[in-house]
Amino acid sequence: MAVAKSSPASSSGEYAKRYPFGLRLSGGQVSGTSSRKGDAGAVKWWGWGLESKTYRLDDKPQFWPFLLKTLKLAQLNECPRVTLEDVELPPPRLDGRTLARLERVIGSADVSTTKHDRLTHSLGRSYVDLLTLRRGIIRNPPDAVVYPRNEKEVARLLSFARASRISVVPFAGGSSVVGGVDPVRQRGFKGAISVDLRKMNRVLEVDVISLTASVEAGISGPDLEDELSKIGFTLGHFPQSFQFSVLGGWIATRSAGQVSTKYGKIEDMVESLTMVSPSGKLDTKSVPASASGPQLKQLLIGSEGTLGVLTKAKMRIRHLPEVRRYEGLMFKSFRDGINAIRETMQSGLIPAMMRLSDPDETAVSLMLSSQGATTKLGLWMLERLGYVPSQECVMILGVEGDHTTLKAERQVAVRACKRNGAFAIGKGVGETWLNERFELPYLRDVLLDHCILVDTLETATTWDKLEALHGAIKKSIEEAIAGMGVTGLAFAHVSHAYWDGASIYYTLVAPQVKGREAQQWLRIKKAATDCIMRNGGTLSHHHGIGKDHAPWIKQELGENGLALLKAMKKQLDPEGIMNPGKLLGSP
Amino acid sequence: MAVAKSSPASSSGEYAKRYPFGLRLSGGQVSGTSSRKGDAGAVKWWGWGLESKTYRLDDKPQFWPFLLKTLKLAQLNECPRVTLEDVELPPPRLDGRTLARLERVIGSADVSTTKHDRLTHSLGRSYVDLLTLRRGIIRNPPDAVVYPRNEKEVARLLSFARASRISVVPFAGGSSVVGGVDPVRQRGFKGAISVDLRKMNRVLEVDVISLTASVEAGISGPDLEDELSKIGFTLGHFPQSFQFSVLGGWIATRSAGQVSTKYGKIEDMVESLTMVSPSGKLDTKSVPASASGPQLKQLLIGSEGTLGVLTKAKMRIRHLPEVRRYEGLMFKSFRDGINAIRETMQSGLIPAMMRLSDPDETAVSLMLSSQGATTKLGLWMLERLGYVPSQECVMILGVEGDHTTLKAERQVAVRACKRNGAFAIGKGVGETWLNERFELPYLRDVLLDHCILVDTLETATTWDKLEALHGAIKKSIEEAIAGMGVTGLAFAHVSHAYWDGASIYYTLVAPQVKGREAQQWLRIKKAATDCIMRNGGTLSHHHGIGKDHAPWIKQELGENGLALLKAMKKQLDPEGIMNPGKLLGSP
Repeated sequence: MAVAKSSPASSSGEYAKRYPFGLRLSGGQVSGTSSRKGDAGAVKWWGWGLESKTYRLDDKPQFWPFLLKTLKLAQLNECPRVTLEDVELPPPRLDGRTLARLERVIGSADVSTTKHDRLTHSLGRSYVDLLTLRRGIIRNPPDAVVYPRNEKEVARLLSFARASRISVVPFAGGSSVVGGVDPVRQRGFKGAISVDLRKMNRVLEVDVISLTASVEAGISGPDLEDELSKIGFTLGHFPQSFQFSVLGGWIATRSAGQVSTKYGKIEDMVESLTMVSPSGKLDTKSVPASASGPQLKQLLIGSEGTLGVLTKAKMRIRHLPEVRRYEGLMFKSFRDGINAIRETMQSGLIPAMMRLSDPDETAVSLMLSSQGATTKLGLWMLERLGYVPSQECVMILGVEGDHTTLKAERQVAVRACKRNGAFAIGKGVGETWLNERFELPYLRDVLLDHCILVDTLETATTWDKLEALHGAIKKSIEEAIAGMGVTGLAFAHVSHAYWDGASIYYTLVAPQVKGREAQQWLRIKKAATDCIMRNGGTLSHHHGIGKDHAPWIKQELGENGLALLKAMKKQLDPEGIMNPGKLLGSP
Repeated sequence: MAVAKSSPASSSGEYAKRYPFGLRLSGGQVSGTSSRKGDAGAVKWWGWGLESKTYRLDDKPQFWPFLLKTLKLAQLNECPRVTLEDVELPPPRLDGRTLARLERVIGSADVSTTKHDRLTHSLGRSYVDLLTLRRGIIRNPPDAVVYPRNEKEVARLLSFARASRISVVPFAGGSSVVGGVDPVRQRGFKGAISVDLRKMNRVLEVDVISLTASVEAGISGPDLEDELSKIGFTLGHFPQSFQFSVLGGWIATRSAGQVSTKYGKIEDMVESLTMVSPSGKLDTKSVPASASGPQLKQLLIGSEGTLGVLTKAKMRIRHLPEVRRYEGLMFKSFRDGINAIRETMQSGLIPAMMRLSDPDETAVSLMLSSQGATTKLGLWMLERLGYVPSQECVMILGVEGDHTTLKAERQVAVRACKRNGAFAIGKGVGETWLNERFELPYLRDVLLDHCILVDTLETATTWDKLEALHGAIKKSIEEAIAGMGVTGLAFAHVSHAYWDGASIYYTLVAPQVKGREAQQWLRIKKAATDCIMRNGGTLSHHHGIGKDHAPWIKQELGENGLALLKAMKKQLDPEGIMNPGKLLGSP
């Protein structure tokens, strides 16, 4: 890429001077799958992230004692996992002739039926998925995994699948936590193939005037950011799964990133997209806004592979921020913190992030902090100032951008926080959060090693309902846990904020109920989701629907809304081959 | 309304203190249809706005000479219109029995077959509509006009219409300029009724915490703003038709307002909505964001009455701005002005408005200015500074909000303008624009009185294509005009700006070609629209599709996109009774 080496410009003004009006930079091809962080071998088949990595607890001596006490456990137990050799997969259901035909469709090098490939495309990364993988009992692996290289191959694959009655599961990063990628068995189908998009991972074009990048759907978070940052840009989308998730998956599930409060959810970043459906290709128009009828783009975004395969998108990109400042603030109560976020959002000047932990999450964060002595001193000081440990809530406030913007945005946010009784606890907390923000998912594997259930769930609602919803969810989860005779903890943070409301993100931990692990999870999930639906929350703010939330989709969209969605599916996927069992539930 | 008299609060912080967390204010019923600016009698049946009002030209002595010279006309001609008495409508096609049944469905007081009501629901306010009205030859009036009072009545009406094979045209303000409200005759239908929503015009609830207002779809712009401003709020949506257009119409057509650059288009303001379709009611969930599959809300927004009747919406509202500043800037070229807008938008700090006229519109604006002497002096000065009259472009920059926000937003915008060679020409220009911003549509009637064609059209595209598209449209319009032997002028402004592009709004004037007025218009329309489609513009940015743009909808959405839209229509409106002939073209 010719301009890849040019130094990042700090404002669009400079860019406009450097490049004549209307100039386009062609994108360079990224360096193949070797840069893909999800490469076979490097990534755990049984857990989160890289084989070589685990969550460090040796420098957090308070964590285990705190957890044992909270969960009323006398000791830590051990729940080992099976080895790869012990995993048994059912044999492929597709016969040799069908596989041979499949190989003729996209080339034998891009079709795999190996144990490793089938296994790693069997499940996502939800708690139940991890439970299943650790036991090595895989019921529904795909019969084959295919790696198309372009839209034409995707179209040929879908024609083949239609004709052969094979269901198709689009697979991006595979980090779904709601059962979005497993090939659910569906009556009437001969088998299922996973369509892994990792070979469609190029940045096709960067328009430095309109600030958009045309990108293939299979590019991973780090690869995309690497490519963009070389020429001074960023997409600005950093979900917790960032290192292992993929553009197409973000769009298919309406993903949110850690700084989506400022930059928008993924659906706000998509200028246009291309989907190959069984009925043909759809290209939405690349314009900033339109009144040409209903916005079809917003139908394809969030369709979770049930309507077709997202193949590419034109994404709105940003200049890399000139400056970035993340800092901590402590509030006397959750309500004070919520009010500070709301007042900031409704001012119209939006910071990158206002992440407010509830009292329990604040306590857990302290236990996961490696700054023992400093923290203790700070807490002692705060207590003297009237901040009650069981009620206080920590917020990470992040601002980024150019100097003018940052200053204005920070000023409004800090004022709102101070008006609501916040005490500034400094940049250290913010920087620690920044450094460790992709680490927490690794902790799940450690907890599972010790027979501890750990799951997350999220929702969003309007400001007027937020505090009540927060309390109700906590209660519903902890009661559901107690209903099976163990003690658990649910804690949360306000994760993304909007003009009219915010999302709230729960983590829950409990000792596993031996022999009934899946039932235990289901009971909690049902209680929490029913509670969300009763209290005006949305079924999901950014995890998506998948298989796990599908039982509630009718309640979420209403009978006529669901019927409308099914009519769209019928139009684009008449035989129902696309990702059956997801989003819409059973056909 | 208990709090209607409370003084507007200046920041959400103050509101939060005044009202306890989660409090809701019930909305008061607005004072009936008497406050509706579109009241029968007060409004022209043959033109724009109030009977009592016309566009003042006596203080703009330069205008007529300029126009005659530009259009190469020796003199002004006169084209009188018919009187109301001369207008003849075909008799209602619905027989007495059917009308009697209709009256049983919603009550005889809310069914009208008077000449006045049928006439005023026959057409919108496009140039061709005005031509037709002034001649008094109305081919397709509705057979009856009904005024439902609530959702249940709407649902009963649709059931009746389905059963009776009568088509239904939802009617909000009737200010469509793309043929959105006329009851196109469709084979197989016994007749057509207009469903006028003016009796569903209440503010149902204002949530001062989440900053939303639940409002019935038939409320007019002024009524809504009156109700909200009493308690310190605004919707912030001010299309040029504001005084005569209606919430439901804005949503049905994806309307944009004069300050949509800051506050968003109407689709950005809708938190949730309710539509009554022939297949049943759809309620989208009131949450700030969601990942529960495709966003159905974005299907219903922009559906132009073809899927059902929008009955209410929960709208995001704003505090009334503390301060407002509108000012003028002069650029040496259109390109400089475009660059200033782009750089501002891409900074992330967004002003209320950056309205940039091209050189021809700048010249016309000067001719419509009543500040003769001051303007001349200013222009003389600018010329000395190197601003060439035939190239210079005026921009109105508007900022509004609280003091902190305004200061930051103005600073970024003014810096970008100065960087691109702008000369500040003061607040006078901005204030004049603010005062006269709803007046220009009245000028159309004056021009038609003098046999002058006047029309507007708009599109949007990405920044990289904007300047080329602007030039191409001008050329296509002026050539189409010349193709019929007369001389016309097309001038434009950049009206709304986004991160990745902007909309551009054209006005065109030409002497009417006597006896071929409709063909003349169609030739220009076709040339301009073909040009927009060829050059990467969207078919419409905020006027909508209606009947006039429907021939291009397949090209805009693609064959599979249009098929998807039709599948949705089939689901919600199986018999095709809803607003036939619009948006999707012929079924």
